[in-house]
Amino acid sequence: MDVGALAFDVFGTVVDWRAGVAREAARLLGPDVDAHAFADAWRARYRPSMEEVRSGGRPFVPLDVLHRESLPEALAEVGAGPVPDDVAAELVLAWHRLDPWPDAVPGLTRLRRRFVLAPLSNGGVRLQVDLARRAGLPWDLVLGAEVVGRYKPDPEVYDAAARLLALPPSAVLVVAAHVDDLAAARARGLRTAYVHRPDEFGGTRVPPERDPGADLSVSSLEELAGALGC
Amino acid sequence: MDVGALAFDVFGTVVDWRAGVAREAARLLGPDVDAHAFADAWRARYRPSMEEVRSGGRPFVPLDVLHRESLPEALAEVGAGPVPDDVAAELVLAWHRLDPWPDAVPGLTRLRRRFVLAPLSNGGVRLQVDLARRAGLPWDLVLGAEVVGRYKPDPEVYDAAARLLALPPSAVLVVAAHVDDLAAARARGLRTAYVHRPDEFGGTRVPPERDPGADLSVSSLEELAGALGC
Repeated sequence: MDVGALAFDVFGTVVDWRAGVAREAARLLGPDVDAHAFADAWRARYRPSMEEVRSGGRPFVPLDVLHRESLPEALAEVGAGPVPDDVAAELVLAWHRLDPWPDAVPGLTRLRRRFVLAPLSNGGVRLQVDLARRAGLPWDLVLGAEVVGRYKPDPEVYDAAARLLALPPSAVLVVAAHVDDLAAARARGLRTAYVHRPDEFGGTRVPPERDPGADLSVSSLEELAGALGC
Repeated sequence: MDVGALAFDVFGTVVDWRAGVAREAARLLGPDVDAHAFADAWRARYRPSMEEVRSGGRPFVPLDVLHRESLPEALAEVGAGPVPDDVAAELVLAWHRLDPWPDAVPGLTRLRRRFVLAPLSNGGVRLQVDLARRAGLPWDLVLGAEVVGRYKPDPEVYDAAARLLALPPSAVLVVAAHVDDLAAARARGLRTAYVHRPDEFGGTRVPPERDPGADLSVSSLEELAGALGC
């Protein structure tokens, strides 16, 4: 593959959103709330919350705004009452404080020697900067939804990645743990690498081991680095 | 100052465009061309080349395109003939291969411990990534003209910096060696730090030692780090 840059999905692919949100929820909501069930309930509202933006029914707003809006329902689903505004704001920031999977930083560090690296996430720009500074993710730049004002899997997000990297789409490799993200990237001519993350949903949902449509399927970013000769 | 992020002008402020362009010109055009005069001639076309975009007369194109367009005139001005397309392309890439001022990397490295750092340049996104990877500039993300589709000093470039950093304008400090850039930033509510770079124009034009309108005036990024407690 004649690839110059790698663009990464982040939630689930690079960082463990479920453990991180549950950690912050346990801290902020106390022991009476099932923190992992709360994380699952909140994440279940992630895609629906973007639909109004994706359909053009409302202007683009960053993911922090959507997380804030879907928070009350997620809390209610696990039997937690409304929370004060300052607690709600802290919960939204849980998504800025997620830990990377153990292979992520070593894998990215190897990959960065040869490739330009960027997140290509639906999380906002500041969210990506906060995650990266906290975890040591060695991005060269931040790409993704907020830069474009569109949410994945809208084609503009993938098109803009190649355009801003000044590369043909076929020289950009999108790395994700989600087959629909990769299918949308391929539809715009980008290359794709699937990462198997069996623990993303805490075992409640098991993703496929491989994506037959992807150029590569790996089970860690260190394996990806090896496969790409880094 | 209650500042969370620093946004840097790059050409002249962080990197020495004149020496870098002259170095590449000497390599590509040979000893018969006055490489520094060529660098000055090309740079003199930088602002005029952006005017048609800034006035709305043509859609946004990245700076590489403007550099390519103004190259023949700059060559002619120093008595150099037209060059083949591959040499022209290499000359355009000279702007991706500029060396930082000696204080830049140590200063930025100190500043990054406390602040989010980004270029806020009229140079394109890929240009910034290439400069940073070559020189070791420790940016957290790339902001600036191409992200917004507008050139400084258009207000949208400064507004977008604060918006994407999720900070109020008054929590973003713009750092530049050019008083007009800082004046435009202040007009949008951002804080400003002036860097005195007496060698930017090789002594042909001497910039002021201080900007009385700026929050801070310094003579290096290491001095800036000290002034900000880093």
